[in-house]
Amino acid sequence: MKRRSFIKTSTLAALTAAVPMAGASGGKSKSRSSASKGKMKLTYRPYDLQLKHTFTIANSSRTITPVVLTEIEYDGIVGYGEASLPPYLGETQASVVEFLKKVQLDAFSSPFEMEDILAYVDKIAENNTAAKASVDIALHDLVGKLVNQPWHRLWGLDPAKAPDTTFTIGIDTPEIVKQKTEQDAPLYNILKVKLGRANDREIIEAIRSVTSKPLAIDANQGWGDKRYALDMIYWLKEQGAVMVEQPVSKHRLDDSAWITERSPLPVFADESFQRLTDLMRLRGAFTGVNIKLMKCTGMREAWKILNLARAVGMKVMIGCMTETSCAISAASQLSPAVDWADLDGNLLISNDLYRGTEVVDGRLVLNNLSGIGVLRN
Amino acid sequence: MKRRSFIKTSTLAALTAAVPMAGASGGKSKSRSSASKGKMKLTYRPYDLQLKHTFTIANSSRTITPVVLTEIEYDGIVGYGEASLPPYLGETQASVVEFLKKVQLDAFSSPFEMEDILAYVDKIAENNTAAKASVDIALHDLVGKLVNQPWHRLWGLDPAKAPDTTFTIGIDTPEIVKQKTEQDAPLYNILKVKLGRANDREIIEAIRSVTSKPLAIDANQGWGDKRYALDMIYWLKEQGAVMVEQPVSKHRLDDSAWITERSPLPVFADESFQRLTDLMRLRGAFTGVNIKLMKCTGMREAWKILNLARAVGMKVMIGCMTETSCAISAASQLSPAVDWADLDGNLLISNDLYRGTEVVDGRLVLNNLSGIGVLRN
Repeated sequence: MKRRSFIKTSTLAALTAAVPMAGASGGKSKSRSSASKGKMKLTYRPYDLQLKHTFTIANSSRTITPVVLTEIEYDGIVGYGEASLPPYLGETQASVVEFLKKVQLDAFSSPFEMEDILAYVDKIAENNTAAKASVDIALHDLVGKLVNQPWHRLWGLDPAKAPDTTFTIGIDTPEIVKQKTEQDAPLYNILKVKLGRANDREIIEAIRSVTSKPLAIDANQGWGDKRYALDMIYWLKEQGAVMVEQPVSKHRLDDSAWITERSPLPVFADESFQRLTDLMRLRGAFTGVNIKLMKCTGMREAWKILNLARAVGMKVMIGCMTETSCAISAASQLSPAVDWADLDGNLLISNDLYRGTEVVDGRLVLNNLSGIGVLRN
Repeated sequence: MKRRSFIKTSTLAALTAAVPMAGASGGKSKSRSSASKGKMKLTYRPYDLQLKHTFTIANSSRTITPVVLTEIEYDGIVGYGEASLPPYLGETQASVVEFLKKVQLDAFSSPFEMEDILAYVDKIAENNTAAKASVDIALHDLVGKLVNQPWHRLWGLDPAKAPDTTFTIGIDTPEIVKQKTEQDAPLYNILKVKLGRANDREIIEAIRSVTSKPLAIDANQGWGDKRYALDMIYWLKEQGAVMVEQPVSKHRLDDSAWITERSPLPVFADESFQRLTDLMRLRGAFTGVNIKLMKCTGMREAWKILNLARAVGMKVMIGCMTETSCAISAASQLSPAVDWADLDGNLLISNDLYRGTEVVDGRLVLNNLSGIGVLRN
């Protein structure tokens, strides 16, 4: 056996030595040569996103969104990541920092072992999905940069197929909603409207007094009764709505199934859906799911969710929290493969630290930058 | 709107120009610069694989396996692919050539649009899964070479986790089986035994007279009755078998479910399973599925199947036909993520045209070559 091993091993050496056949690549061979000795270094810092407008949904209001910005450095290259922490989701800058302190990446010899690295990170503690996403995104950015490719390309997606993004009109008085719509509607091809309150119809009428553009509706669990929800959906369709998110409480899957069965519009799970393991449970209860990196622990699981959803005939939308262009650009790498994109989180803040995926004439435009496609401002 | 577009576009230009931040890369920038104008060129030729030993399964025998070898050339780089055509699966060299004549890759501007390219290829005609795989594999090899990375790395898998491969002892007289076992058992850590005939117990006893190594059993639908199959499985477990493939007819899912429910060993679907869309139907009827590139149209769908199977709690094995090291190395890229590997097809032929993934002390050893990891001999 010894001798056989020796022969095989030397043959392997020959094969490995032949790598340049694929074309010279500084970044590549550099990363390979150090793959066995290099160490990944994870750093992070809390940062507060300033919102351009007070942000209101069915059950909260705020003017800032706390985030934690991460970096993973390896072989002289830095990958950027982010955890966005809207208060109502339970994670805080403190809990993320606490989590990230436990992440020991130097146990891994190479950032390319993404499956194992991210499985390890996921096992460190329950939940903490945004903290986990901040590692996943930085790791994807790093690996993409090491291979000099944007992730949409590594996933085999055509960036020209990136869809329009919805732009969110927050809940407010009909007057303010009308003003916001007058200001923002011209820049987008589809508007997202947060409903789920008593004045839903007034809000829609205020918007319709300004624009006839298609509307994506997010009820944020705000409609108390399934029959009321279905009536609203029928009425909203007449008003030019094209899809609805989370009509009723996330726990009421039977009601959601009842609504989805009868709905003239596709019904998406948002609060009802967190991770890959939730998807099978939601079949039948919703037409599709809203994938958010901060809920599903990042890009790797998001890609798996997308493919699982397709395999079982469900639709997919990609959403976001209020985030910098870091997490938004990461999410946008997946956008050429989704049915709907709601990636306006970076457009709602005044102190973005990154430039990346842009919105041109209402459509997401992915650049050719490696990794998640961002530059630090 | 015009002015806004202009500003956005120029910003994008700036971002794109900034690409080198990720490290210089000849291969990469080369492929990007020509991504918009380059064309892919698909070529192919029939080739007959000479088998070292007459190959016998429950319902056929042969001494050669016809294949079609493919190449996709783009930007001066060539990706290798292969369609393996065991007679009992229905495709022939003629049918593959007929199919490949219809493939118009020059309609696509870049090989990186894998999702769209492979969706187009899949729609050209029903079935023809090996022909489709020959395009998928060559495209994966090409794209991997363009980005200077092996696919196990692009998939984030640790090559050190590649498992042992089973080595197949074909059906024959107990004497021949004993001779084959004496010859081959020392080189492998797990043997695959093709059963499904009247002398199954004799065959196992012949093997056991030579070696006590674990056995993977492939009944190839050969056990006529579910109770007989279950009795055999219990007996085989006592004989040191660790898993069973396709105990009864591929159409008898109820019997498979009955067997799987009671089986002391994991039961895998082979003939019952072809493609991603079959998987959900097999939940409950089998413990896992045997993914073969020639059945599922190639590497991209294989990766999706693996992730779907994991998401629904099913086990996965990766199998093969009699193939050159081209298709075997392509399949092996996935092997660090599977429960069992049966990738010995290239070890059974005497006129392999490629060198790639090797077997060292019974274990699959993936090299660092880009793409599917092969060199042309």
